[in-house]
Amino acid sequence: MSVELITLTTDFGVSSPYVAAMKGVILSLNPRARLVDLTHAIPPQDVMQGAITLAEVAPWFPPHTLHVVVVDPGVGSTRQMVYTKFADQAFLGPNNGLFTRLAQRNAPSTIIALENPAFWLPTVSSTFHGRDILAPVAARLSLGLDPNQLGPPLESLILLPESEVIVSGRKITGRIESIDSFGNLITDITADQLAGVPQDESTTITCDEHQTLGIFRTYSDQPAMTLIAVIGSSGRLELAIVNESAAMMLGVRTGTPVVISW
Amino acid sequence: MSVELITLTTDFGVSSPYVAAMKGVILSLNPRARLVDLTHAIPPQDVMQGAITLAEVAPWFPPHTLHVVVVDPGVGSTRQMVYTKFADQAFLGPNNGLFTRLAQRNAPSTIIALENPAFWLPTVSSTFHGRDILAPVAARLSLGLDPNQLGPPLESLILLPESEVIVSGRKITGRIESIDSFGNLITDITADQLAGVPQDESTTITCDEHQTLGIFRTYSDQPAMTLIAVIGSSGRLELAIVNESAAMMLGVRTGTPVVISW
Amino acid sequence: MSVELITLTTDFGVSSPYVAAMKGVILSLNPRARLVDLTHAIPPQDVMQGAITLAEVAPWFPPHTLHVVVVDPGVGSTRQMVYTKFADQAFLGPNNGLFTRLAQRNAPSTIIALENPAFWLPTVSSTFHGRDILAPVAARLSLGLDPNQLGPPLESLILLPESEVIVSGRKITGRIESIDSFGNLITDITADQLAGVPQDESTTITCDEHQTLGIFRTYSDQPAMTLIAVIGSSGRLELAIVNESAAMMLGVRTGTPVVISW
Repeated sequence: MSVELITLTTDFGVSSPYVAAMKGVILSLNPRARLVDLTHAIPPQDVMQGAITLAEVAPWFPPHTLHVVVVDPGVGSTRQMVYTKFADQAFLGPNNGLFTRLAQRNAPSTIIALENPAFWLPTVSSTFHGRDILAPVAARLSLGLDPNQLGPPLESLILLPESEVIVSGRKITGRIESIDSFGNLITDITADQLAGVPQDESTTITCDEHQTLGIFRTYSDQPAMTLIAVIGSSGRLELAIVNESAAMMLGVRTGTPVVISW
Repeated sequence: MSVELITLTTDFGVSSPYVAAMKGVILSLNPRARLVDLTHAIPPQDVMQGAITLAEVAPWFPPHTLHVVVVDPGVGSTRQMVYTKFADQAFLGPNNGLFTRLAQRNAPSTIIALENPAFWLPTVSSTFHGRDILAPVAARLSLGLDPNQLGPPLESLILLPESEVIVSGRKITGRIESIDSFGNLITDITADQLAGVPQDESTTITCDEHQTLGIFRTYSDQPAMTLIAVIGSSGRLELAIVNESAAMMLGVRTGTPVVISW
Repeated sequence: MSVELITLTTDFGVSSPYVAAMKGVILSLNPRARLVDLTHAIPPQDVMQGAITLAEVAPWFPPHTLHVVVVDPGVGSTRQMVYTKFADQAFLGPNNGLFTRLAQRNAPSTIIALENPAFWLPTVSSTFHGRDILAPVAARLSLGLDPNQLGPPLESLILLPESEVIVSGRKITGRIESIDSFGNLITDITADQLAGVPQDESTTITCDEHQTLGIFRTYSDQPAMTLIAVIGSSGRLELAIVNESAAMMLGVRTGTPVVISW
């Protein structure tokens, strides 16, 4: 696969000089590389949140995009680094579960362990493989390197266990899976799972001790300061407080159960 | 107008994956698009702050820049999305007041309602029009689409009411309009309005219970920890504490009145 | 030196519209300029931290990179702005100590005072020389301007005094020099200085009232929640708490002494 575009996803924090070091390494090897930040605000070492964000955002990028992902609590241990392909995009990152959510939708067509140090920096630190291994490999792939040169193929990716949405009779139980910068609470309950659920006020959505009735089309369907449930832009159920931060006002965190009943 | 450069301004928060999704959509349609972040740190849903920042920063960009702006508390409601031109730059965003401050300086030469869904993503969510409408329209404009294809012309833009600076006798009353990342307090009082005011210590600047005498040329004209008034880089009066955050030390917020008397 | 790439380092804060204004000025003069953010998260007016970050990250960028640096508490005073070269990269910034750490490794090959206003914006504010002087000079250098046109040569750069690592007998005393976004505590003690020190548990590392034994290869060599000392990716000793923020859990700040004894 030719690489037209390289994105970077890390837990390094916003405006981190570590990200710049990775960009410097890539541009030193391929001055024409085109770089886009996907996000650097993954919570530190939160592999599952990285997996969720990646699966949410990567599909909006063009074919032949190479996504480089560094959420790597096991850096320096024996965990492997991998190259993998989902549909027409490629990914580089530690094989620690970061591709769990992508793999739920499509099986990867290629998995290769990064074992050939010929394509790494000459000196590899034990604490920053994003800069010393992933960045030079990404640059070389963007220059046309055949991924099969990177190392041996692997049979499968490591996947994280996921809590499941439970659908039973007139009740669906999921949980808050992520919180966006507006404080909207995004659940793991998909639009598909809600297909048969009435949208009107006969449906109750419960999160902790908070309740709201009905599923709306958009935030502005209710007055300011109202708790509202909508199908968000990610195709999943969201709880929001109109014009405010639901996360802050309700004090809710990721993992909190959300129950829909009708 | 040909489009050479696309900037993005949002209230999505810094390093938001939502911004990356917009970039992915643009680059999927026009892989050669050149993208620059203007800022993603507009306070959530603060349309007026978006309008101020846009008017402050857009003029530093070259002609043929297209500025895409998403501060959109009314997303999914009946508010319109528009294409508009000020001087030699173009803008895309919700018609909710975001262009108020630009329109104070120049009348827009074109206003077009985005009503033709042929240029949007095939499926439009009700909560993320930045990704589903503005991003594909921006990409298509950068590929040469005639803006007149986007929808019907509009007579006027929606403008927000603005508090006015009051000049009367030997007294000017304005207010703190924004606070920068150094904690400098930036007022709505312009250098023009201060033209006849003595710069020396016969002039008193009052903000809440705090006072300072004289208007200086630059921060370093006073010792550290001093409250100082200067004409800032935006051409407006600023209050600063030398080498410290005035916002933090004085506990002052936007909207606080500032009185100049002499 | 031809300029292939321009990086920006500032203390303007993340996603600051001031950064965008600088980019707009550069792109107005050279629409083909290639821009990369190094970091905008230098603590406000912390020149030494700017010097440390710059020396850490700049070397990862290719030859012919021009680094523009704005950490400028003395803006508007008589401090000079300079162009300087270290090895095959160029730098623009205030002559206030920002190049201290780079100069420790290599002598600069060129130092030129920016005194020729022909290459600045026509109107220069007294508070934002990054936008009004450095950005247009950077753009013009990227278009091929000879740096000798910028002003007269200088004999030397201003350097900040640096605390020194003290090596005496079986004891090394340094200090916490910076804290990364994971809360890892990065010292000024280099791998070279540790060359003769035993890595095993006969070596004690003390920071405030906290102690740990031995110097490890990587974070994952110890269980979660353990205080660990490693040689980090910058080639200096770091103290970390495995999977947690050492800065937060230990309440340690930059400047805190670190003692190694064996």
